[in-house]
Amino acid sequence: MEKKIMSGSFSDKLQTSSAIYKEKYLAHISIDCVVFGFHNDCLKVLLTRFEGENTWALPGGYVDKNEDIIEAAKNILFRRTGATDVYLNQFKTFGKTGRSEGFFDNYPKGLWQADRFISIGYYALIDFTTLDPKIDMFSDACAWHDIQALPGFTMDHGEIYNEALLQLRRDLNYKPIGYNLLPEKFTLPELQKLYEVILDKELNRGNFYRKMKRYNILKKLDEKRKGGAHKSPDLYVFNGDEYAKALENGFQESW
Amino acid sequence: MEKKIMSGSFSDKLQTSSAIYKEKYLAHISIDCVVFGFHNDCLKVLLTRFEGENTWALPGGYVDKNEDIIEAAKNILFRRTGATDVYLNQFKTFGKTGRSEGFFDNYPKGLWQADRFISIGYYALIDFTTLDPKIDMFSDACAWHDIQALPGFTMDHGEIYNEALLQLRRDLNYKPIGYNLLPEKFTLPELQKLYEVILDKELNRGNFYRKMKRYNILKKLDEKRKGGAHKSPDLYVFNGDEYAKALENGFQESW
Repeated sequence: MEKKIMSGSFSDKLQTSSAIYKEKYLAHISIDCVVFGFHNDCLKVLLTRFEGENTWALPGGYVDKNEDIIEAAKNILFRRTGATDVYLNQFKTFGKTGRSEGFFDNYPKGLWQADRFISIGYYALIDFTTLDPKIDMFSDACAWHDIQALPGFTMDHGEIYNEALLQLRRDLNYKPIGYNLLPEKFTLPELQKLYEVILDKELNRGNFYRKMKRYNILKKLDEKRKGGAHKSPDLYVFNGDEYAKALENGFQESW
Repeated sequence: MEKKIMSGSFSDKLQTSSAIYKEKYLAHISIDCVVFGFHNDCLKVLLTRFEGENTWALPGGYVDKNEDIIEAAKNILFRRTGATDVYLNQFKTFGKTGRSEGFFDNYPKGLWQADRFISIGYYALIDFTTLDPKIDMFSDACAWHDIQALPGFTMDHGEIYNEALLQLRRDLNYKPIGYNLLPEKFTLPELQKLYEVILDKELNRGNFYRKMKRYNILKKLDEKRKGGAHKSPDLYVFNGDEYAKALENGFQESW
């Protein structure tokens, strides 16, 4: 399908794909993915830029008429990153009228893509080091951006991004995190740094360690981080079974 | 609009409304509401039953082509309950293929309503005493059901209900609750009971009181509950400003 609409300007491609998409996808429903990665103590988000536009978009797409929405989200991510084992979390659906107002003004009239769309938001946590962002046929760039230095967003994608970050912060209260964001072996200061970057605040080291130990999802290795000035160079891995159980049932410790 | 399709059997009404709905509403998108109320120490949920069906459904509907989804949800609830000041919380969107499989088998072919629908779930908390469930033209019953004694659900509505309850429990960890579920003046044991019923477990009284006081959302009145064998008969109201602030920003105390 993609081959048929590969050539010509962005506008040409929109027009050629319009009829094809109308056949293939459900009308009025789209998916947008907020893909977080962690690297060098920074939280990053994967953004894409449509040809000829200055603003950036979340990687997104449509739902095949015979596809569950979660499968659609996985397929969209796979096409953009090649990643197959991604932790995807549906966090909110965006359905204001006028979400894409203005965006299609300079393109042909009557495009299927210019109809009203209600977009289902997923956030994903991805191991930054294992993937390779891919430009699709509508984009001229696809890149990681540090969340401390974000570019301008297209349409309501800034709002979608903000809501994803809020939800990720809430989720830290009852779900484990880190498996898809840290290398296999990590130190407690590295895990703490991940929480601090997401929450955008410093945490007390003692409290953090105690809480983490109570969660019972870590396994201490008989190995230490070599080199560097680490205060707690002991290396840990996640206990896969306990981690999966906590992800499924939640910590539920607050009440 | 509703007058045109008021008469005839359920099947007739589905068919008459099909063409009207196609003009008026967005295709493929529906809304389902899980409406919780609290009464006599029981949590209840509002369910409706289609004419001629044995199973029960969540009150739901469609999205007008020119309407934000949150407005659509409010309008659906208003039509069912007359309530206008409802705390609505979008919790998840349901988009498996085959969600309504089998439901339309005995009805006319080609109905707009029998297309594939992706349903946006909202939960609502409503003051049980102030509202009056309404039967719509497709239903022969609309009633509160105790969550400890639920009837069979239609389609995937059981799954939608379960997810709403899970989300409500999670939300207790970072949001205040009670304003729409308790009478204006209440005792601390009454507030604790509400939490216990939602969480389906007993809470330690001392911990609960300390936590609630730390949240700073209660105002103690110079008044006591009369009659009955209350251990802590002091009456409280919510501090409206602090409650609204906590609802907006979350308690965020966990980390």
